[in-house]
Amino acid sequence: MTYRAPVRDLAFSLTAVAGIDDLAATGAFPDYDGDVLNAVLEAAGQFSEEVLAPLNRPGDLAGATYANGAVTAAPGFADAYSQFAAGGWTGLAAPASAGGQALPKALELAAFETVHAANMAFGLCPMLSLAAIEALEAHGTEHQKTAYLPRMVSGEWTGAMCLTEPQAGSDLGALTSTATPNGDGTYSLTGQKIYITWGDHDATDNIVHMVLARLPDAPAGPKGISLFLANKFLVKADGTLGDRNAFRPVGIEHKLGIHASPTCVMQYEGATAELVGRPNEGLAHMFTMMNAARVGVGMEGVGIADRAYQHALAYALDRRQGRSVWTGEAGAPIFDHPDVRRTLSVMKAKIEAARAICLSTGVAADMARHAATPEMRAHWKGREDLLTPIAKAWSTDAGVEIASQGVQIHGGMGFVEETGAAQFYRDARIAPIYEGTNGIQAMDLVGRKLSQDGGASAKAVIAEMKATLTDLGGLYSGKPIERFKTAIAAVEDATLWILDRKADPAGAADVLAAADAYLKLMGDVIGGWMLARGALAAKARLTAGDGDPAWLEGKIALYEIYAANVLGHASSRLAAIGQGGDLLKRMGREALGV
Amino acid sequence: MTYRAPVRDLAFSLTAVAGIDDLAATGAFPDYDGDVLNAVLEAAGQFSEEVLAPLNRPGDLAGATYANGAVTAAPGFADAYSQFAAGGWTGLAAPASAGGQALPKALELAAFETVHAANMAFGLCPMLSLAAIEALEAHGTEHQKTAYLPRMVSGEWTGAMCLTEPQAGSDLGALTSTATPNGDGTYSLTGQKIYITWGDHDATDNIVHMVLARLPDAPAGPKGISLFLANKFLVKADGTLGDRNAFRPVGIEHKLGIHASPTCVMQYEGATAELVGRPNEGLAHMFTMMNAARVGVGMEGVGIADRAYQHALAYALDRRQGRSVWTGEAGAPIFDHPDVRRTLSVMKAKIEAARAICLSTGVAADMARHAATPEMRAHWKGREDLLTPIAKAWSTDAGVEIASQGVQIHGGMGFVEETGAAQFYRDARIAPIYEGTNGIQAMDLVGRKLSQDGGASAKAVIAEMKATLTDLGGLYSGKPIERFKTAIAAVEDATLWILDRKADPAGAADVLAAADAYLKLMGDVIGGWMLARGALAAKARLTAGDGDPAWLEGKIALYEIYAANVLGHASSRLAAIGQGGDLLKRMGREALGV
Repeated sequence: MTYRAPVRDLAFSLTAVAGIDDLAATGAFPDYDGDVLNAVLEAAGQFSEEVLAPLNRPGDLAGATYANGAVTAAPGFADAYSQFAAGGWTGLAAPASAGGQALPKALELAAFETVHAANMAFGLCPMLSLAAIEALEAHGTEHQKTAYLPRMVSGEWTGAMCLTEPQAGSDLGALTSTATPNGDGTYSLTGQKIYITWGDHDATDNIVHMVLARLPDAPAGPKGISLFLANKFLVKADGTLGDRNAFRPVGIEHKLGIHASPTCVMQYEGATAELVGRPNEGLAHMFTMMNAARVGVGMEGVGIADRAYQHALAYALDRRQGRSVWTGEAGAPIFDHPDVRRTLSVMKAKIEAARAICLSTGVAADMARHAATPEMRAHWKGREDLLTPIAKAWSTDAGVEIASQGVQIHGGMGFVEETGAAQFYRDARIAPIYEGTNGIQAMDLVGRKLSQDGGASAKAVIAEMKATLTDLGGLYSGKPIERFKTAIAAVEDATLWILDRKADPAGAADVLAAADAYLKLMGDVIGGWMLARGALAAKARLTAGDGDPAWLEGKIALYEIYAANVLGHASSRLAAIGQGGDLLKRMGREALGV
Repeated sequence: MTYRAPVRDLAFSLTAVAGIDDLAATGAFPDYDGDVLNAVLEAAGQFSEEVLAPLNRPGDLAGATYANGAVTAAPGFADAYSQFAAGGWTGLAAPASAGGQALPKALELAAFETVHAANMAFGLCPMLSLAAIEALEAHGTEHQKTAYLPRMVSGEWTGAMCLTEPQAGSDLGALTSTATPNGDGTYSLTGQKIYITWGDHDATDNIVHMVLARLPDAPAGPKGISLFLANKFLVKADGTLGDRNAFRPVGIEHKLGIHASPTCVMQYEGATAELVGRPNEGLAHMFTMMNAARVGVGMEGVGIADRAYQHALAYALDRRQGRSVWTGEAGAPIFDHPDVRRTLSVMKAKIEAARAICLSTGVAADMARHAATPEMRAHWKGREDLLTPIAKAWSTDAGVEIASQGVQIHGGMGFVEETGAAQFYRDARIAPIYEGTNGIQAMDLVGRKLSQDGGASAKAVIAEMKATLTDLGGLYSGKPIERFKTAIAAVEDATLWILDRKADPAGAADVLAAADAYLKLMGDVIGGWMLARGALAAKARLTAGDGDPAWLEGKIALYEIYAANVLGHASSRLAAIGQGGDLLKRMGREALGV
């Protein structure tokens, strides 16, 4: 079984659901049109299928290796990375001034889905570069942008994000790495960072580390953190590489999955570093690019889910057991048994929902930068902010769930490593954890993103969902309509309830107790909304005779699958949202018997 | 972090929820009383904690090994097995005539939870012996019961169940292994079996294989399968071991988890075998013991879930990040953050629900054998049949989900193998697959167990749930009552709908499309019922001043946690139950674009 990039589905999601063509109307993407979209997805898909997918299982088996203060990428990965860089894939959405192609971020996200699906461990390397590029682009000095950015955009160098310390994970305010001025404008960086993805490797000549640390006079806590840049090899004035900088990996983690992605413990021992942005504003600088990284991780969830789905579907079409209730065939493909068909259909529906949520977040991010007026940019920024934690958490939870179902479809073979399904189950498990755990995403949603504009962004989404509900009356009747209507009402109730509890100083624990269920509710219902819009678009294309009718009919059925199997959760999410902090407080140590 | 057997919770579940004391009233267990219950659980717990738990991670790392046609157990496992056998643990519920202790199966199940939790790979070895013992006890000849049973009950020999072939997994009717009469009452067994758990090892002198195969004149399909017994070493008339029999492992699988449990490919090459039970009734004979094996697997789900929960709870009490909204403490244990507390509380609630479902299934099985009248035995048999697929599937799905949440609670550390949480996530994944996949369980529930008595067993459960609902009015008001009421109504609606569709010849696909959601609904609601009964019992003990008040209050809160976070799913399950087969049929190859 090989990976097949879902080019047609990706193009459909971008154009029919996420609204990428609205971007063209801004005039900010002169090089973008529908032909470019298809060409980019085709080429990315082909590269992912032919170069990256074949390295996935060997990379899992061999892993990246550490010895004597250096990391060696898994066999074949350095060469694949060279091809990736040569293809210009790192620069898809980077500014032309830095040598990028200045295409929409949303298109880049779609292209990267195929990379993550083909080889999640590989995809992390350019994904972290993109995050570093984004940080430098937003906060770097002119010198930094001139000296480093083009070589990161070209893929000649990679980037790494260095935040976590042993005592400072979700609570970055607790970090203790220090940066002392050297008197020449540079700083001397000291400390240990953990979980540094692709923090060291042999695939490029240089690696740019973006590191959070404290200046000597910095206040305690989150307001005393600054952002620094440290090159693995010092860069001379003429751009050539000089001495090795004073930092190195001291080990890599032995992990559940993504074995070919080295997760480094990095030691900085007076490393030469440059300040990026303003002193003591490092955390804020980091967060400006965190949105992009988070939706990127959401896309990883989509990619690994689609890979697991494809693998399971191929098996279900091939494996024959029992008599089909539909065809009467003895020794029928298990695909023709309703329970297997149901599992695969719900997997597919969730994948398309998650994909559309992530790509819509990408379009919102592009619009937030490029829409015509400040009001429109603010509107889209609000949409991006609201959708980002949902895109990250809901999609990565779906990734784990779907990878688990992928194993299940295979029966006993799914538990055997050489089948491949188990790797997806292992790899998928990291995505709900990094770039802010999904619990942190939920707290970010209810604690900040929802209320920062008084709920305006959420209310705008609710209003748009109601408009779609009206349109849906032309396509369905009965249950598929009722379920969406009930689900929208649940979102409305929950949103108002949380805004109300948030306004009450005594309501903080209630809001936090509701966080997870509220995020899941939003994901479930917004996902349904995306599929509903897809169904409406499919209907329009069918009417216009534009596209493969059976496949377009599939989009119409897919919403119904989702409505029957997912939208119904809305009422249970509502129950959990209202459970209140006091109930959880009662579940203390003594109640649990510890 | 070491494992602590939840002796108090197990005893509570057996006595306050599953109703084990009703068994004593049958007079069938003269050696059983409350003191014996506590002594057995204490001793089993201690053995699991001290002998089995320390071998869990080393066993994962080293695994069982295969070389030159023989399997070697992971280091320390053979010795641990000898201690297990010497402790008499295999014979807890076996008949006294075979050297067993003739205690209730339900108590044995509870004791085995601690074995599975401590070391799931180890637990499979005696669990498969129990299944083989059960099959021999029910269908063996007097000779077989005399010659083999006592040595299996004592643990001197282990048993293996040999069903699956490459082309015959869920569809055992497709198996092709053959058994030819030798003319002396024995048979010559030929064929290949896969996924044979502990099919070979070096922990005992002999292994008894229970093998499904076809007689030469057997009809095709499931009605031509017979059950055979083949000893690894032939047993002479005086009971001593003779020649090596003509079967051997030809390899073991490289699996996602339970590395210390050898999963063998077995080759039988004219092996000497004995018929067990009647010719061509092998599948039925196998199924008489399948109920017991399935609830045993359910208990594995409970065990691995509790292990993952304990591991995550210990981490949450230890790991300090951020300020608690409850205590105001900076650098608070993450246990004092509502979202972490919620996660752990829901994990705990599901574990106790699953445990009570499995133990209630065990009590029903005991009552089905030992209740006073044929009517009562039939009633309990119906209860056992109904609960068994739910106990197996719901508990093992919970095992996977809770093990995944256990990883999540650990954040980045959860993804690092040496933390241990990842092993539970890997190990847990097999339980929804073997002993009939959870999809097969769901089909068994709606296709057979629900309707075999015209729905009488399901209706009896519904009536009892309504009685509990009435009692609950004395303990709670508002939401915790309403949620249970709504959930019971959903079970009632769904049950009647499925019985109705099942009565319609055109309804077969509708029933199968509903199977998974119906099983999940039943598990969710019966689990809530169990916790509600636990809460009522806790209240009674509180009133009587009998037991640790904080812990008993915890049982009362736990039902409320479950009602808010799980019972609400009932309405969404109902939506999925009604989706119908036609909708799934529309999701064909073309619709999916393959």
